[in-house]
Amino acid sequence: MQKYSRNSRISAITKILIENPNKIMSLNYFSEMLNAAKSTISEDILVIREILEAMEMGKVETIAGATGGVRYLARMSKEEEEAFQESICETLRDKSRIVPGNFLYITDIMLDPAIVHKAGIILASKFAKVKADYVITVETKGIPLAYEVARYLGVPLIVARKNSKVTEGTSVTINYVSGTTGRLGNMGLAKRTLKSSSKCLFIDDFLRAGGTVHGISDLLNEFDSELVGIGVLVDNKEVVKKMPTGYVSLVDYRGVDEEGNISVEASKRP
Amino acid sequence: MQKYSRNSRISAITKILIENPNKIMSLNYFSEMLNAAKSTISEDILVIREILEAMEMGKVETIAGATGGVRYLARMSKEEEEAFQESICETLRDKSRIVPGNFLYITDIMLDPAIVHKAGIILASKFAKVKADYVITVETKGIPLAYEVARYLGVPLIVARKNSKVTEGTSVTINYVSGTTGRLGNMGLAKRTLKSSSKCLFIDDFLRAGGTVHGISDLLNEFDSELVGIGVLVDNKEVVKKMPTGYVSLVDYRGVDEEGNISVEASKRP
Repeated sequence: MQKYSRNSRISAITKILIENPNKIMSLNYFSEMLNAAKSTISEDILVIREILEAMEMGKVETIAGATGGVRYLARMSKEEEEAFQESICETLRDKSRIVPGNFLYITDIMLDPAIVHKAGIILASKFAKVKADYVITVETKGIPLAYEVARYLGVPLIVARKNSKVTEGTSVTINYVSGTTGRLGNMGLAKRTLKSSSKCLFIDDFLRAGGTVHGISDLLNEFDSELVGIGVLVDNKEVVKKMPTGYVSLVDYRGVDEEGNISVEASKRP
Repeated sequence: MQKYSRNSRISAITKILIENPNKIMSLNYFSEMLNAAKSTISEDILVIREILEAMEMGKVETIAGATGGVRYLARMSKEEEEAFQESICETLRDKSRIVPGNFLYITDIMLDPAIVHKAGIILASKFAKVKADYVITVETKGIPLAYEVARYLGVPLIVARKNSKVTEGTSVTINYVSGTTGRLGNMGLAKRTLKSSSKCLFIDDFLRAGGTVHGISDLLNEFDSELVGIGVLVDNKEVVKKMPTGYVSLVDYRGVDEEGNISVEASKRP
């Protein structure tokens, strides 16, 4: 069987770690795939860990024991994070983003992989410690961001639906007051979606008064499960909030003045 | 400024290429970041290209000229692709997946990053040549997969909405017949979503008679844009199809027999 150079092994291991964030990969796996001793693989991983830490591009953790191995955690440097937040603000300051009803159009941002991908890394890194079992969101705009956070945390995504669907079997539905429209809405989850006693992290595009968050929290209670964190791209600071738990946002929005200027700035770090 | 070893540079360059699929990255960018000559960076990239090709883990292309550089294209080996298709089939054969109305429950699969991520690589690689400007899907279940395909193709995602939203401004709405319910539905896109004369790739979870596909095609026509490909996870072979263009699926579904056995197998390669 073929042998590979250290250079080649390092490239292959880097790729596999990055494509499996927050997942423990055994040294045996790399050892067999690359036809190299485990001690050799350990040395390769040390090189990867050192350069990723030096460039603040991520962490590689070693987990000891029989089920041990290595695990990649996506991280971003403080400077890159701040530059990214500022670039979102710049994009949001475009006056043509105000649509009738004085809403801020952010759909394009929530669907742009280049943006969602980075926002996902940042939010996942802020919530690494809550050890969520699932990431949850409510359809529709927040789904790609919630998906990225789930991918980086290595957990499944759950999507609460605003209309229960024929193809999902029995579901649990609750009522909530939408902050956008002020109207009573309902959202539901298929019964089979979620194990009881789960810890869930809520991710969404836009945070207003928190009606949706309370809806999600109520819905999770029906599954004997718990909301353990809230992460959003944009926090609407014009609205007084009542939140069941702490939250993290990337950008603060403070409305539009009479000349149509959009007030938006990077959220302060928690 | 610090110098790095070849090993370290290779790890950093691999990571950046993998996180920017289908995007041309200039040698200058790496040269400045890693404080190394462009000729040195070229040699690093050659190592990465060779190992990724040898292990069938992806392609690294060199683009000549002033706007040139290198570009990473996600790929999977035929063996890995087939093993992945078979693993989805295994998961789908679980009898408890049949929900009332004889529908196959696939929501958990469409929301599992470990599955969606690989399905995204496969579908993106099949459609690399159509040079789509956007990936389009219709809410809700197909969004994570469509997002991954968009990410791997390096293009934005568009999501057609089943109910037009107050926060998106003027939108274009069309009627279509849903294959699932047989009922007339409507779906729309905000006017600002899409530039005219765009080529769009449609990605979804489940393909039945093609009512949704024709709806998407009609909707794109309203934007003087074109459907250039269709990719789905599951193809329902029980239904006769009329498709406006060719499609790719990963898994063929042929219904449920009287004992509740689910007939599902890997789709043949196109």
